[in-house]
Parts: sequence; structure tokens; C-alpha cells
Amino acid sequence: MIEDLVDRLRLVRSPGIGPVTYRQLIARFGGAAAALAAVPDLARRGGGKTPQLQPRADAEREIAKVDKFGARYVALGQGLYPRLLAELEDAPPLLIAKGDLNLLDRMAVAIVGARNASAAACRFARGLAHDLGQRDLVVVSGLARGIDSAAHDGALGSGTIGVVAGGVDVFYPPENEERQRAMYERGLVIAEMPPGTEPRARHFPYRNRIIAGMASGTVVVEAAPRSGSLITARLAAEAGREVMAVPGSPLDPRAQGCNQLIRDGATLIQNADDVVEAIRIPASQVRSVAAPYEPIEEINGDDAAKIVEELLGPSPVPVDEIIRLSGASSGAVQMALLEIDLAGRLDRHAGNKVSLRTA
Amino acid sequence: MIEDLVDRLRLVRSPGIGPVTYRQLIARFGGAAAALAAVPDLARRGGGKTPQLQPRADAEREIAKVDKFGARYVALGQGLYPRLLAELEDAPPLLIAKGDLNLLDRMAVAIVGARNASAAACRFARGLAHDLGQRDLVVVSGLARGIDSAAHDGALGSGTIGVVAGGVDVFYPPENEERQRAMYERGLVIAEMPPGTEPRARHFPYRNRIIAGMASGTVVVEAAPRSGSLITARLAAEAGREVMAVPGSPLDPRAQGCNQLIRDGATLIQNADDVVEAIRIPASQVRSVAAPYEPIEEINGDDAAKIVEELLGPSPVPVDEIIRLSGASSGAVQMALLEIDLAGRLDRHAGNKVSLRTA
Repeated sequence: MIEDLVDRLRLVRSPGIGPVTYRQLIARFGGAAAALAAVPDLARRGGGKTPQLQPRADAEREIAKVDKFGARYVALGQGLYPRLLAELEDAPPLLIAKGDLNLLDRMAVAIVGARNASAAACRFARGLAHDLGQRDLVVVSGLARGIDSAAHDGALGSGTIGVVAGGVDVFYPPENEERQRAMYERGLVIAEMPPGTEPRARHFPYRNRIIAGMASGTVVVEAAPRSGSLITARLAAEAGREVMAVPGSPLDPRAQGCNQLIRDGATLIQNADDVVEAIRIPASQVRSVAAPYEPIEEINGDDAAKIVEELLGPSPVPVDEIIRLSGASSGAVQMALLEIDLAGRLDRHAGNKVSLRTA
Repeated sequence: MIEDLVDRLRLVRSPGIGPVTYRQLIARFGGAAAALAAVPDLARRGGGKTPQLQPRADAEREIAKVDKFGARYVALGQGLYPRLLAELEDAPPLLIAKGDLNLLDRMAVAIVGARNASAAACRFARGLAHDLGQRDLVVVSGLARGIDSAAHDGALGSGTIGVVAGGVDVFYPPENEERQRAMYERGLVIAEMPPGTEPRARHFPYRNRIIAGMASGTVVVEAAPRSGSLITARLAAEAGREVMAVPGSPLDPRAQGCNQLIRDGATLIQNADDVVEAIRIPASQVRSVAAPYEPIEEINGDDAAKIVEELLGPSPVPVDEIIRLSGASSGAVQMALLEIDLAGRLDRHAGNKVSLRTA
């Protein structure tokens, strides 16, 4: 069992405390209990109301539910937590996982694509997943219809992880219940949301970052322009992972998304060997996006907080720029941002940018 | 009419005088007549027999034939000669052309591909050729079955050039007679071989270098691995031109060649706009492979010839390396090589390499 799980969960489930804030709180205060205790004071200094922390009883109820379902928590910073996922700046602080946890320790490739993909593309995805399994790679996908389902099916015998947008115990789409149950037994199902959560549109991009973040590379098989699969590809690229795409005839409108990805620099993939070649560079050589639990320096005083607040506006600004412009230490700026964040007055954006929340 | 055409033709048609040798002879002696006169002496100095120069009467007979057919010669170094083609180290010294010579002066794109291409790929090639024509680009291809024919058909209204492997008056394949006759009227047909030449397998790579050499870029549409189309693509790349390929599903074996080209760095093409974008860099900015008629320096004496001969062996060596190792001037080395060449004792290879011919 994870030490201080209740405290961690209370932090994670408290409104206004996202993964980035969570990470900084833990880094600053050394643990979840100390962070929880510090939040009210931090928020007051940030000029806002005390955030509504999750009641202890609610956290305990969720833990009991997860336990009863036969799932377990995997916490950022623990040995079981997927190493590549931990590199994300906004890595989920807690995952809920049901199935074979050993799969978390193996090198993984994501296969994603359209829900309404062609039969040929689904067949290709299934074959590719199978062949990657033969090369000791775990296949990660999103347990959606179409390409995702085909990828899981192809790798069920060798190792596959399904990341769901809702609760680990929720079957979406409903026709995937049998597949998801098979993966509890022979694969692994992962969720960030609490059990019982029905997936909503806003959950899917968060789910996609986990898929891209766990994998050494993401293969897109048939994706419409502006689809969720392309978001996953973008997240993979932002995390410094290999982006791969399966081409198709320009006469086939369903091939447009992948062909465009290749034009934009994705590696063209024809088979499992192409994937293995693309991800051959050890992940350890990939630049770490965020060093986990980097210690934050001591605060420089209230001056820093004031300067930081003056530098913030409604337009997102890189945190690095605020540090540079403020003349304050990185630690002091992070601390000031944390306070404003916990006061409900900060928005965090992709690429480590922040803005002042507008009423 | 081209001045000294008879002399040029006699040089070109003499066995043992290829395009590279021709170019160097003209550069050294200032004209075809002087070069013709010098060949016997050069060959003797190179330690071989005098090459069998084409009889004057044969050249005159070919010229009469070309004239009667309504075609004409276009000579390297003349204004009409395609500017990009002249950049090739082994640019054909003389082209025989029948049709609209104005097409030689416009920016061109090559479209090549499999003779047994799918109907869908042929349809794509025809549409692409048409759309490139709408963007003022001339479409060059090889008047073969399949993709070539489709490309010519699509661009017949806007401007298309067919480069044939045999004589300008020979229809190969025979079913293309109607198409080729239409291009005499509304397009342009080009040949390097004398009229009446039936194309042989060895002629096609020479034909392909003209296609690739005339065009700012080459688009490959469906090509089998190790096919002539891929040779054309390689020749285009070697000439510093844009290589483009149309992708296809990995499940379609006919897409393998193009997908591999894209993996190797070719630009993925979905439509005419993609082509225009790819070739947008003006061809004038492309590094010239060989400056036409660069004057060769005076000979340094017989010493250079001896040193050069000692540096030559059965393995191809870059000419630049021979120049460097010999310590002689570039002109002296070129001259020595020319003599050995005309004596039938030199083999010239791609990438400006040479070797001593082995019995």
C-alpha cells in the first residue's frame, strides 16, 4: 500500500489542484500531509479563498471502492509508476490500475486512430500490435472503438494497456465491456478519474496525454484531421517521443490525417520493424521534460510574489520568462505562482505557461 | 539550324565518346570540328587505338532523316536547351525533339511510376498532371504504359513532354502511337537516340536521367521496389532536385516503393499544391552539379599524364581525388583522363568517378 495515500488522494481530488500544482506542492513540502496543511495559508497569501479540500471520508470511500474492485493506486514517485509518464510536467499524480502491473515496467508503444476506421486499417492495426508484441513491446491504446480495439485485440496475448477516460470500472463504449474485462485478466486497464466516472468530452485529452506519455512512441493509424488521435500525436511530440503514422492513398479521405502528420515530420510506418527502428534511441537519451521532484529554492520574500503578480496578465506567459523578468529565484517565482494558483486565480497552460484567471 | 551540327553529331555518335567525354572535348578544343580533329592524337597519347569516328555521310543521313520527320536537334550550350538538364555532368549533347519547343523553356515537374499501376493510381496521376498544368508547370514523363501515359493525358491541354528511350519516331509500346502522335502536335517528344532506334533495356536509365534532369522535381506514383521509377528518383536526388512520392496503404504491395522513398526522405505528396510547395525554392538556388563549359587549364606536361595513369586502377576513384593526389592542375588531370578515355582505356562512373578499364 502507498504510504500517505489518503493525503495524496485528498490533494489530487481537491478542486483547483491540478497535476502541476500537485507536483509543486509535494516538491515544496516534501509530502502530501504537509502540503495539505499548507494549502489554506498559501491560498490566503495568494489573495483568494481557501480551496475546498476533499474531506478525508470521501478519499477513504474511494480507496475502499478501488480496493473492492480489485484495482490499485499507482502513485507518481513510486517504483511502479511508468518511468516515461513521470517525465511529463503534468503527469497524473495517481493512476488507478486493474490487471497485470508488470506491464508498467516494459517498453511501450501507443497505437491510436479513428473510431470509424476502415476494416483494412483495423486489420493493419491488429497485425501491427501483434507483431510489436512479438518484439517484446507493450501496446498502449484508449479502449475506444475502431483502431484502439483492434490494437488491444492484436496484443492481448503479448501485453496491452488500455487507458480509459472515465473510471476504471466504467465500460465505454458499452460494447467494449467484454474486451475491457479480458484486459483486467490478461492486460491492464488504467484510469486517472475516480471509479464510477462516466467519461465526458473534456476527459479525453487528459486520457490521451497518459497514452502518449507512457509510450516511447505513438503510431497513428487512420485519423481524421483535427481528431483526438492527432492530439495524442501532438502530445507525444511535445513530450519528445517518436511520432509515427501509417500512410494511405491521397484518394482515401481517411488517410488525410496520417499523410499530413508524415508531411509534418512523423515517421512513415509500414510494419513493426519500422516502429522498432524509429524508437531504437533509448528513452533515457530523450531530454527529460520535467525532472521529477526537483527541489525548489527558498523564498526570496514577499517582494517576489508582488513582482510575479504584476508580471501576470490574461495572456499566457512562459514561467521561464516570468522568472527571467522578475529577477527573483526560480523557487520564489514557483512559490508565488503556487499561492496564486491555490487561491483560484491562476490558469496553467500547455508549454509551462500561466495566466491570471479572468473573472 | 545549329552551326557545326554535323561535327557535333559525328562526335556524339562515335563509339567510346559519351556525354562526359564530349563535354570535355568541346570545352578543351572550343568546338566540335577541332575536337574531332584532335581525337586521334589524344587517343594515341592515351595509349590506345584511334576510336572509330562516325563517317560524315552517316551524320548527314541522320540529319536529313530528322529533318524529314519534322523534328529538330537541340544542342547542349544552345539557348533552346533545357537549362536544368544542362546542369547534369552527363547532359545529353544533342536532343532530337518534335513538337512545341516552347515547352523547353518552362518550369517542369516529372511524374513517373509503374507501367502496371492500379486504376486508382493512374487516375491520381492524371488529376495531378492536370492540376500542375493549371499552375503553369509542364509535366515530363516517359511515354510508357500506366502512370506515364496517365500523366501525359492529364497535361496534354496545358503542356507535356515525353522523353522516349528509342528514336523520336519509334512508338513503344505500340499502343501509345496515338498518344505520341498527339504529343507531336500538342506537346513535345524528345529522344537522345537516332531516329529508328528500337528501345533496349540499357536505354531506359539514360532516358530516365533526361526526365529527372529536365524537371525541378520528380513525383513517383506507385512504384515497385527496384523499379525504373526509383532509378529516376535517385537520379533526381543526385541532381539536387526535389524527390516526391505519393503514399499508399502498407497493405497495398504496389505502395511499397513510394512509402520507402518517403521513409528515405522524399516529400509526401497529396496534391498539386504539395508539389508546388516542394519545388518553390528556385532551381537557380540549387547547387549546380557541373558548370557548363568550364574552361580547362593548360596542360602541365606529360608528367601529369603519367602520374594520373599511376593513380588509376580497376576500382572507381573520384576525379577530385586524383587531382588532389596528383598535385597537378585540374586541367592537366582532365586532359590526361580524356586521352586515356579516348584510347578506350577508361571507365566513367556515377559521381564523377573513373577507373582503368580491365581487359
